[in-house]
Amino acid sequence: MVSDERLAWVNGRLVGEAEPSLSLLERGLTLGDGVFETMLAAGPNLFRPAEHLERLAWGASLLAIALPSPEDLLAAVQDTLSANRLSAAVVRLTVSRGPDPGRGVDVSSALTPTIIVRAMPYQPRAIRRTGLTAVFPSLRRNENSPLSRVKSLSYADSVLARLEARRRGADEAILLNTRGEVCCASTANLFAVKGDTLVTPPVESGALPGVTRRCLLELAVARGLTVRQASVLPEDLWAADEAFITNTVIGVAGLTSVEGRPIGTGRLGEGTRSLAADYRRLVRCSLAG
Amino acid sequence: MVSDERLAWVNGRLVGEAEPSLSLLERGLTLGDGVFETMLAAGPNLFRPAEHLERLAWGASLLAIALPSPEDLLAAVQDTLSANRLSAAVVRLTVSRGPDPGRGVDVSSALTPTIIVRAMPYQPRAIRRTGLTAVFPSLRRNENSPLSRVKSLSYADSVLARLEARRRGADEAILLNTRGEVCCASTANLFAVKGDTLVTPPVESGALPGVTRRCLLELAVARGLTVRQASVLPEDLWAADEAFITNTVIGVAGLTSVEGRPIGTGRLGEGTRSLAADYRRLVRCSLAG
Repeated sequence: MVSDERLAWVNGRLVGEAEPSLSLLERGLTLGDGVFETMLAAGPNLFRPAEHLERLAWGASLLAIALPSPEDLLAAVQDTLSANRLSAAVVRLTVSRGPDPGRGVDVSSALTPTIIVRAMPYQPRAIRRTGLTAVFPSLRRNENSPLSRVKSLSYADSVLARLEARRRGADEAILLNTRGEVCCASTANLFAVKGDTLVTPPVESGALPGVTRRCLLELAVARGLTVRQASVLPEDLWAADEAFITNTVIGVAGLTSVEGRPIGTGRLGEGTRSLAADYRRLVRCSLAG
Repeated sequence: MVSDERLAWVNGRLVGEAEPSLSLLERGLTLGDGVFETMLAAGPNLFRPAEHLERLAWGASLLAIALPSPEDLLAAVQDTLSANRLSAAVVRLTVSRGPDPGRGVDVSSALTPTIIVRAMPYQPRAIRRTGLTAVFPSLRRNENSPLSRVKSLSYADSVLARLEARRRGADEAILLNTRGEVCCASTANLFAVKGDTLVTPPVESGALPGVTRRCLLELAVARGLTVRQASVLPEDLWAADEAFITNTVIGVAGLTSVEGRPIGTGRLGEGTRSLAADYRRLVRCSLAG
């Protein structure tokens, strides 16, 4: 183990991140069969841990994976944070269904989940002055799978969408669902601002119920904006005054063009800036304990 | 390492299957980011290796994963087969994008893929006398993702579909695509026989281009059947004389009811039996070298 290597937590044991700690029988690896969460931490304080653990539990329950208690999961996160002494961290909590000596997709009730916690340094970025450019990738998000509402380990569609965006010279991919509605970015929720209304696609359209998404909806209400969870078409996005995407790690990032066509003025707008500032303040206060 | 444990091949090294041989940074685990193939072997002989490797290469290329040469991959398979001395084996060749010290879905070109080969004993089953029962699970297969044509490591939809089938007392799940067409079983292709015509959903409907599927299409032509790759609706399936599903491990398995409604007579038909026998003969002869 390299001496400056970060430590991760695997089923109660601290291991070097790059050390061999898992077997090739892990169903997380063989079938993308598991769930995960990504959370912010400052020292021992986590941002909205209950909401993250609730979503993890919902996904695990859908896939019939038995989770340890929230208390045990939080203790594992704390062990990992202490071991790495990071002032600000992004924590990834991964649950694989566990090592399966068998083959195929059938689930043996005898499998014991593998819990993995990783903590990485977090540098909150100042909001980009230029905003992100995006394309609609050729693949569509499948709102017809309950897993569209789950952070499962089967994320290859998102990898492929982002690859296509980069290949086409854009920062990000904005996924349409199979009905042609705007759904989300490759790993982030999407919002459009029109006048004093903030709109975001509902989870029924295939959007992940993001923790940052929920914060933004609350912050917008507090700012006196009208908030709607409603279908967004590509034309609605282009016709919006502003648009932005959100997730735990990027926070709020402005989206200024899709497929080469500007959104609103094509520049980062005041609504996005204000909500991004509100969100950064919320995170900072919350993490200050 | 337990003495009777099977050996697997990981990047040139033989390891006990259950030993820790992979790090938690593997993108196959964190994001289901990789591809795999499952092949039959008898001694050193493989069934249709070129077709399996061609499909693996297509999936890897789509995901921009650089594969070793087919010769190197086949040599790894041979090393694994020799090490385990199995007379008949199911070989699983897994390619993960590799360990990623970073975070998120972006692809760093510096990643080195991890190649994993596992060999398990294969017992070709006599065809079940009763045929399989199936249900249509609530989730739909996403024909709008190129990954529906790829054996990627993101297989959680299949796991979930099979879980639902088992929970509802059925053997198998038959997935509809987002347009409501019959697509495939949770891990197998689907065929319907009507008179002297054999129909299977086209890959455009979300069906994996299966190696066994291709064999069946060839065998059906040789038997003088008319073969069509065409959309199959649930009504077409119930109205068929017979139906069956195919993959490398099960070969040909009769499907006798869906959602409690019989297909044809509700019993295993002569067309299925004949094609299953043809396929078993093809595999046996081919593997005899």
